[in-house]
Amino acid sequence: MLLCMGCQWVPFAEVVSLLTVAAVAWEAGKPLVIEEVDVAPPQAMEVRVKILFTSLCHTDVYFWEAKGQTPLFPRIFGHEAGGIVESVGQGVTDLEPGDHVLPVFTGECKECAHCKSEESNMCDLLRINTDRGVMLNDGKTRFSIDGKPIYHFVGTSTFSEYTVIHVGCLAKINPAAPLDKVCLLSCGISTGLGAALNVAKPKPGSTVAIFGLGAVGLAAAEGARIAGASRIIGVDLNSNRYDQAKKFGVTEFVNPKDHKKPVQEVLAEMTGGGVDRSIECTGSVSAMISAFECVHDGWGVAVLVGVPNKDDAFKTHPMNLLNERTLKGTFFGNYKPRSDLPSVVEKYMNKEIELEKFITHEVPFSEINKAFDYMLEGHSLRCIIRMDASP
Amino acid sequence: MLLCMGCQWVPFAEVVSLLTVAAVAWEAGKPLVIEEVDVAPPQAMEVRVKILFTSLCHTDVYFWEAKGQTPLFPRIFGHEAGGIVESVGQGVTDLEPGDHVLPVFTGECKECAHCKSEESNMCDLLRINTDRGVMLNDGKTRFSIDGKPIYHFVGTSTFSEYTVIHVGCLAKINPAAPLDKVCLLSCGISTGLGAALNVAKPKPGSTVAIFGLGAVGLAAAEGARIAGASRIIGVDLNSNRYDQAKKFGVTEFVNPKDHKKPVQEVLAEMTGGGVDRSIECTGSVSAMISAFECVHDGWGVAVLVGVPNKDDAFKTHPMNLLNERTLKGTFFGNYKPRSDLPSVVEKYMNKEIELEKFITHEVPFSEINKAFDYMLEGHSLRCIIRMDASP
Ligand SMILES: NC(=O)c1ccc[n+]([C@@H]2O[C@H](COP(=O)([O-])OP(=O)(O)OC[C@H]3O[C@@H](n4cnc5c(N)ncnc54)[C@H](O)[C@@H]3O)[C@@H](O)[C@H]2O)c1
Ligand SMILES: NC(=O)c1ccc[n+]([C@@H]2O[C@H](COP(=O)([O-])OP(=O)(O)OC[C@H]3O[C@@H](n4cnc5c(N)ncnc54)[C@H](O)[C@@H]3O)[C@@H](O)[C@H]2O)c1
Ligand SMILES: [Zn+2]
Ligand SMILES: [Zn+2]
Ligand SMILES: [Zn+2]
Ligand SMILES: [Zn+2]
Repeated sequence: MLLCMGCQWVPFAEVVSLLTVAAVAWEAGKPLVIEEVDVAPPQAMEVRVKILFTSLCHTDVYFWEAKGQTPLFPRIFGHEAGGIVESVGQGVTDLEPGDHVLPVFTGECKECAHCKSEESNMCDLLRINTDRGVMLNDGKTRFSIDGKPIYHFVGTSTFSEYTVIHVGCLAKINPAAPLDKVCLLSCGISTGLGAALNVAKPKPGSTVAIFGLGAVGLAAAEGARIAGASRIIGVDLNSNRYDQAKKFGVTEFVNPKDHKKPVQEVLAEMTGGGVDRSIECTGSVSAMISAFECVHDGWGVAVLVGVPNKDDAFKTHPMNLLNERTLKGTFFGNYKPRSDLPSVVEKYMNKEIELEKFITHEVPFSEINKAFDYMLEGHSLRCIIRMDASP
Repeated sequence: MLLCMGCQWVPFAEVVSLLTVAAVAWEAGKPLVIEEVDVAPPQAMEVRVKILFTSLCHTDVYFWEAKGQTPLFPRIFGHEAGGIVESVGQGVTDLEPGDHVLPVFTGECKECAHCKSEESNMCDLLRINTDRGVMLNDGKTRFSIDGKPIYHFVGTSTFSEYTVIHVGCLAKINPAAPLDKVCLLSCGISTGLGAALNVAKPKPGSTVAIFGLGAVGLAAAEGARIAGASRIIGVDLNSNRYDQAKKFGVTEFVNPKDHKKPVQEVLAEMTGGGVDRSIECTGSVSAMISAFECVHDGWGVAVLVGVPNKDDAFKTHPMNLLNERTLKGTFFGNYKPRSDLPSVVEKYMNKEIELEKFITHEVPFSEINKAFDYMLEGHSLRCIIRMDASP
């Protein structure tokens, strides 16, 4: 390390650009292309991370499809991952090279009103921003090919062997935790688990409906089961989901396509007036409305998790609210990423939660497009993508 | 009392019909007419009550105007009142002649899932029903003129010197409490107070917006002040409300008509991103939407109290929910009428709450139509109607 004896200034970055391998999305909806990409050194408060494992979450797919979302291409997607710190920028004191980290799409500056509030995890500085595509620090990208910038995605861009991330978007975790499993906790599984445990909070013996039985929904089912719910009703348009779902505590299954009446009415009939809690994990606004209207009047709580389209409208008769129903939304299961994620990792280490059953597929980085196919075909929960690049 | 020595059967009703004076609404929106009305004896689980004082709540006015509501005429309105039990029907053991009671538009059977739940006050048997107009027991009315039935309103119909009410819709209260004041606790004031204290639950030092500064909204402001809110922002289309509102702890005032941008944006600018809690007490669906969208992301809670029109739609972008806002509705401030109302009356007796400041007008029963005028002109908070009929 260089150290100027005169002024005591410690320049952090003898760190230089490096060449990495990344999966670049050149156009909306077109297969990613593995490319050699320049990764600039981390600037102030940034960290360069070597990603070991990443997985695909539906949020990546939405923005890659860019239907009704702001398109921003070329771009490097990916936000569910685990890695090791390679180098740190100026001002970074919480992390050092070698630390094991989980990147998170929503950060924690620890200083704003949200970070100081016990209730919120929506950091003013580092909350999810899907339209930015550049680093906060200087409004530039750290990725480029022949000098042409490549956009970032939600501050993480983990579909790259090396990536640059704001220190506030990295949770330092137990180095003994296997990154090929706990990488799932950096988005979907924590989101579903927290939506149940931190937000819906079902009481022991209660009935919970889960809309959408992808990884997020099944993690919510797992949370409901841990909280002691006795009936967990899974709702999905894809009936193949039910077999898998039984492993996650789902006790009954409803496919809205099998019924003429709205699914909220079907659920109300099955449960003597409505479920105690519902958790929507689809991203479909019609499922959000059903998930709200199917909760019992007087005490029912509906929690929205799915990411809607830009022009969606949530619409209901206000009397459904007046009848003492509660509606709330959550990001990342209301976990504060840096403060809370290490303890969620410990839940895995203590065998309180199981991650293996979420992993239905595994591919080498070179075959990352298969992970997209699996999700779009509705076959996978999570597909682990190994970055070591060996097939 | 007749007692059949053979079968031990105790016939309750040697009670007979009586002739009373009631204010009958013959047609939607037309002045009430004071008429002589037959009041049948109370049937099983019913109680005949002598009303001493009643007041006018906006819910009466909505159903009297019958705009976008099911019209049901001729009808006797009124649900905010205080009275004394005159006679009881078979099976009534909790009340006896002479007891002081407050009628409530939503009852408490004490046996259904709602009554047994700690969270709900929406009794399955006796919850508000604005379309019924007849008694539960036999689907008939207890009011008639020359044999022609007159419909009831929300099971109370207190614009009558005598009325028949289900025992589950009567709270027995301290006989020392002055009925000309505590009658206000039978609807509007408890509704607003409970919406703040039981549902919105603002933290000490927080900022609360109140939409609609009628009696219900000002009772909500009172509740927010009692809970320790330090900024209470009143929002009303009628700027005359502000002077009155200051007495109820309202610290700032916004008239949406004074601004070009939506009032939710004005409030967000005044409060660095949004209020901590909002309570809507207008019945206007656009105010409901503003009240929701003006709460701070991350932790804001909006509570809806106003009674909407039949065809209203509550509409918002789902992202407003995902950003960790909570939306809930309440009936009667989540108080259970029989279990909780006696202690709210005690709060008045202990001077924890003041009712006098809600009373802006008083009229004899013969001038009941003036109470409608005062409310429609936006001049009154509450107008007490004295039933003794002496001018
Ligand atoms: N709020 C957050 O913090 C957060 C974090 C991660 C993911 N998400 C969102 O959660 C949602 C689920 O993510 P995932 O990775 O589990 O996706 P996924 O595609 O694996 O699962 C979604 C499931 O929903 C089902 N579905 C779609 N429309 C439906 C409808 N109308 N009714 C019933 N079922 C329906 C699909 O068949 C599928 O099984 C996505 O919208 C994702 O963007 C939100
Ligand atoms: N949920 C319940 O249990 C319950 C009980 C009682 C009353 N209510 C309802 O509460 C509401 C208030 O009752 P009240 O007796 O105080 O009525 P009120 O007429 O005395 O007061 C309503 C106030 O709202 C204002 N207002 C109307 N539209 C507005 C808008 N778009 N923006 C801002 N202000 C607006 C009016 O100017 C008025 O000052 C009514 O809808 C009534 O039906 C509900
Ligand atoms: Zn995700
Ligand atoms: Zn912050
Ligand atoms: Zn009322
Ligand atoms: Zn009941």
